[in-house]
Amino acid sequence: MSRPLIALDWGTTRARAVLIAADGTVQARRSADRGIQSVPAGGFPAAFAEIAGELRRMAPEAPVLLAGMVGSRNGWVEAPYVACPASPEAIAAAGIAVTLEDGARATILPGLSCDDGAFDVMRGEETLLVGLGLADGIVCLPGTHSKWARVERGVITGFASFMTGEVYGLLAGQSILARLATEPSPAEAEAGARLGIAAAARPGGLLNAAFAARSEVLAGRMSGGMVGPFLSALLVAQEIAGARALFGSLDGLALVADGALARSYGAALAAAGLAPSVTDPQDAFVAGALRLAGALRG
Amino acid sequence: MSRPLIALDWGTTRARAVLIAADGTVQARRSADRGIQSVPAGGFPAAFAEIAGELRRMAPEAPVLLAGMVGSRNGWVEAPYVACPASPEAIAAAGIAVTLEDGARATILPGLSCDDGAFDVMRGEETLLVGLGLADGIVCLPGTHSKWARVERGVITGFASFMTGEVYGLLAGQSILARLATEPSPAEAEAGARLGIAAAARPGGLLNAAFAARSEVLAGRMSGGMVGPFLSALLVAQEIAGARALFGSLDGLALVADGALARSYGAALAAAGLAPSVTDPQDAFVAGALRLAGALRG
Repeated sequence: MSRPLIALDWGTTRARAVLIAADGTVQARRSADRGIQSVPAGGFPAAFAEIAGELRRMAPEAPVLLAGMVGSRNGWVEAPYVACPASPEAIAAAGIAVTLEDGARATILPGLSCDDGAFDVMRGEETLLVGLGLADGIVCLPGTHSKWARVERGVITGFASFMTGEVYGLLAGQSILARLATEPSPAEAEAGARLGIAAAARPGGLLNAAFAARSEVLAGRMSGGMVGPFLSALLVAQEIAGARALFGSLDGLALVADGALARSYGAALAAAGLAPSVTDPQDAFVAGALRLAGALRG
Repeated sequence: MSRPLIALDWGTTRARAVLIAADGTVQARRSADRGIQSVPAGGFPAAFAEIAGELRRMAPEAPVLLAGMVGSRNGWVEAPYVACPASPEAIAAAGIAVTLEDGARATILPGLSCDDGAFDVMRGEETLLVGLGLADGIVCLPGTHSKWARVERGVITGFASFMTGEVYGLLAGQSILARLATEPSPAEAEAGARLGIAAAARPGGLLNAAFAARSEVLAGRMSGGMVGPFLSALLVAQEIAGARALFGSLDGLALVADGALARSYGAALAAAGLAPSVTDPQDAFVAGALRLAGALRG
């Protein structure tokens, strides 16, 4: 690294900006509720200045890299998906230049697509995957739409999405189960998660197992505080089972998560006999942005 | 039958009343958006009169039978679940008497519970099951919370619920997929359903397959009109697969459905190699109410 770098992970509901010093350390972070859905057409240069203008003033010479939904059809400029198998060089080469308010250029990174029968897409996670170092193996990136990706010989060869986080929000927040749910105590959180993981192993599938939250509460065998943790663990365990069916062995799994997601996925993965390495998504993003910025220059 | 009968299927959002003549034919029907959630505490006698008062005046001597959520904790009076295996006689015997506005009595039928590891409950469907005649076999009752039940030697021995209808409403109406969905043409309905049934067979499970609606639209391989039918067929096929895993062979299956549900379940069951008999839910309800009224008198 000879220069600092400004990188944004600019998603649907949130933007996170980071200024990375020439030595690779993080010098400053900014985050804002300025996801692309809050930006009007033509408003991206101004929104960028709002989110990252201060970082630009701190390092005016730093190149700017934008990842995530900012490159989607509803973003600043559409950066077409790079088809898997995808290398960091191919991702960097497909970057699209945009112009900031002050006339400087920034690069919008593309997302990835893959098509092994089922078509699938990601935007933003490709940068985290690159940041993990692209060692052979399977990577789990939990979220609203979780991604599981396979890395082989330094390239991303395929991946699959799971609507886990979004379905959790709908079931826990808006279904008949929502009325039963109360704030969990730590003991309820643990007991609910244990029941949810067990329910995921039943043969009837997710649509059947989710209803158990209602009937077990009616039966007095589950408390209101256990409902949310039950649903979360049930869905995460279903996601893990689905990923295993798609990818086969999950040995040497890498998990990119922090906070509550790291805990819930860690517990469900442990119950499935898996002990993943865990990386903080923000660290993975910084490493990925640095590597892709290097590839852009190269 | 020596007397007419008034029977109500009184659910969460709707009430359907039927006056059945002494010869077993339906003499009059009334239905109203007066589900139990719209009835204030203490308001059930008045709500009953609103829904079925006219039928009472047509046949003042007819006994009154109430089935469904009206017997739940949030209903008129809680009629405790009858545990499976449950016979029509046991269901009738557990009926709870309530008093109508004019002082006459009515009977609230209980729901059923079963517990083979997972606890489960139904209210209302037990009357339809009885109405089907209780021949040995498996019965599918689609709905917001679909029920699959096993009948052996004239008793209901077990059942399982699936949140299919509710999850469809959430995914098609409120998820990221909702924004993509448009009103389907007949050709789109058929093509979407075909893709949904195929997607259900993929190894990644429901959370993965549902996301395909989004990526296939992005890829231009699915139209907006196909999204709803895709999701519906995917969920129904997942439900059928779950029922098969729970109940084993589904040969001799009976489907209790009409209209769009009869069509969508019929298509998904046919794709699974099953050719169920089909009974209209209202016919099953009338037959079940008659049989349970007979057991009450007996």
